[in-house]
Amino acid sequence: MTATRPRHLVALRYEAGALRALDQTRLPFEEVVLELRTADEVADAIRRLAIRGAPLIGVAAGYGLALELQRDPVSLERACAMLLASRPTAVNLLHAIARVRAAALRAPEQQRAAAALAEAAAVHAEEEAASDALARHGADLPALAQARRVLTHCNTGALASPGGGTALAVVAELAARGRLESVLACETRPLLQGARLTVYELGALGIDHELIVDAAAAGLIAAGAADAVIVGCDRVAADGDIANKVGTLSLALAAAHADIPLVVVGPTSTIDPGTESGAEIEIEERPAEEVLRAAGTPTTVTGTRCRNPAFDVTPARLVTAFVTERGVASPVSRQTLGELLARPPQHASPAT
Amino acid sequence: MTATRPRHLVALRYEAGALRALDQTRLPFEEVVLELRTADEVADAIRRLAIRGAPLIGVAAGYGLALELQRDPVSLERACAMLLASRPTAVNLLHAIARVRAAALRAPEQQRAAAALAEAAAVHAEEEAASDALARHGADLPALAQARRVLTHCNTGALASPGGGTALAVVAELAARGRLESVLACETRPLLQGARLTVYELGALGIDHELIVDAAAAGLIAAGAADAVIVGCDRVAADGDIANKVGTLSLALAAAHADIPLVVVGPTSTIDPGTESGAEIEIEERPAEEVLRAAGTPTTVTGTRCRNPAFDVTPARLVTAFVTERGVASPVSRQTLGELLARPPQHASPAT
Repeated sequence: MTATRPRHLVALRYEAGALRALDQTRLPFEEVVLELRTADEVADAIRRLAIRGAPLIGVAAGYGLALELQRDPVSLERACAMLLASRPTAVNLLHAIARVRAAALRAPEQQRAAAALAEAAAVHAEEEAASDALARHGADLPALAQARRVLTHCNTGALASPGGGTALAVVAELAARGRLESVLACETRPLLQGARLTVYELGALGIDHELIVDAAAAGLIAAGAADAVIVGCDRVAADGDIANKVGTLSLALAAAHADIPLVVVGPTSTIDPGTESGAEIEIEERPAEEVLRAAGTPTTVTGTRCRNPAFDVTPARLVTAFVTERGVASPVSRQTLGELLARPPQHASPAT
Repeated sequence: MTATRPRHLVALRYEAGALRALDQTRLPFEEVVLELRTADEVADAIRRLAIRGAPLIGVAAGYGLALELQRDPVSLERACAMLLASRPTAVNLLHAIARVRAAALRAPEQQRAAAALAEAAAVHAEEEAASDALARHGADLPALAQARRVLTHCNTGALASPGGGTALAVVAELAARGRLESVLACETRPLLQGARLTVYELGALGIDHELIVDAAAAGLIAAGAADAVIVGCDRVAADGDIANKVGTLSLALAAAHADIPLVVVGPTSTIDPGTESGAEIEIEERPAEEVLRAAGTPTTVTGTRCRNPAFDVTPARLVTAFVTERGVASPVSRQTLGELLARPPQHASPAT
């Protein structure tokens, strides 16, 4: 099966003393590969969104720390602080830096750089394995057995996380198994990650696709243009309510209205047992400037006030299945999520 | 009440031998008033969307014909044909031209121009009166009695039809009655009529407002940010299913999910008894180019295929009330629409 799987994009790769990363700010119009050789350069790439997506940022930061230790072994703490500050509140970033730092400090002084690099590579490999597992669990879902045309939102592929990503990794796996006809990709205003990145990835994967404005999704779903909706997630509350990119709730309501499955895909690390329900999830409001422009061009009267929530919350009852690297919760509830978290990492997959 | 009503924008006005029309292609960035003196100039303004909105196009075409007869009395049929061809399938255009032409032909030869102008002015006045009636009926709705914060979509105001428009006329009337706190305006991709035109109109009306991307509506509604959704409509089937600007179904589902009213506003001329149900309404697919650019700037890979439906269909059961110039259908059904159509034009309004 691996042989026929479409090869996903490689958003970043460590090679010969440099982290080579696709500059995502230039996509889809230019394919520019950055060669990053210092923690400063990696932090800068993260800061200006050339490298984005929480899991990808974590992996990049791990390599950034390893690169810095090769260059200057005494700069460990300074490099950690700088990389940590490159994006606020990215838990993967914190986690990856903590792991690479600990590995370096455990090693004898002259082997710190090598130990850091090995740990960064391990973080990377684990993320890739998790993505592969997610993809298989998703494609195995009975709810997707008849799905030939799927609709997706935002960018959840290889540009957002190592390996094939989350929701888009499932889409790619369905295609690899010869079961997918086409994808409807929502453009995902305000930042247009669907138009800019998902369309680019689907093209690279050779998967037939059509782009739509976000507002067109419900009508197309109601008219029978999609057999399933597959999206990623940013955070899952203990009761199964799901926070994801703004627009997801609308897709969930449309899927329920048309009686097609809504499949949510994400690593178990997105489950937050400390958050009781969706009502407790605080929704980040981003700058008005994102709404006031589209693809950089002003769309409205200067100074217009905006609401710009980055996420919305979809109630658990609207989610057909939550797919993780450890397996699937379906229906999504406190109980099924608890069972999922009780499984050992990546060893509970059904035979595929 | 009229004295305190916010004065709506005047999108076009006949004055001293010219039709003066706001060039809507320049809004909201520039306020350019066109002075149109021939049928050719009016047709050109309609063709390039400087004048838009079915009712406004009809009124403009009526004046265009009258202007042409003042200039050249023998050019009647040529002018009719050219104005008719300026926008395909606009039923208001056909209707207004037929009325003005008939009035001219009824008059003695030397009074044709004057008769045409009088009829064009009558069409204009009737449309304004219909808009005023719509606005009053909408603001009188019990379902909107508690609505302080309303969400609207696309542009349905004075830039789309004479008078205050349809849905936005109701919003303006609520504001005039001192009952409105603020409006959430959806930007309305792909052509951004909400961002470009509704924001501009709300500013001109002095109504507090915030702009959102279309995908943010459902989450904000679910979070309690709006008390009602008020939208226009393009066509109403005999059973009450409603075709309107793409994105409306998503708002209807979100309103039902949050248990807030969805009020649809439009003239009785949008009711099409010949269309049995929403399933029979053919949805216009517009060019991919509209999706591939935002505010004129490319957003994605060149040549990407798109779906670009201009409208979607909202089932009658999701509509709390349908407001027309003759009164209100609520709930919306074959029976209540039939009762509405049986009322005499604009004389069945409840005391306000």
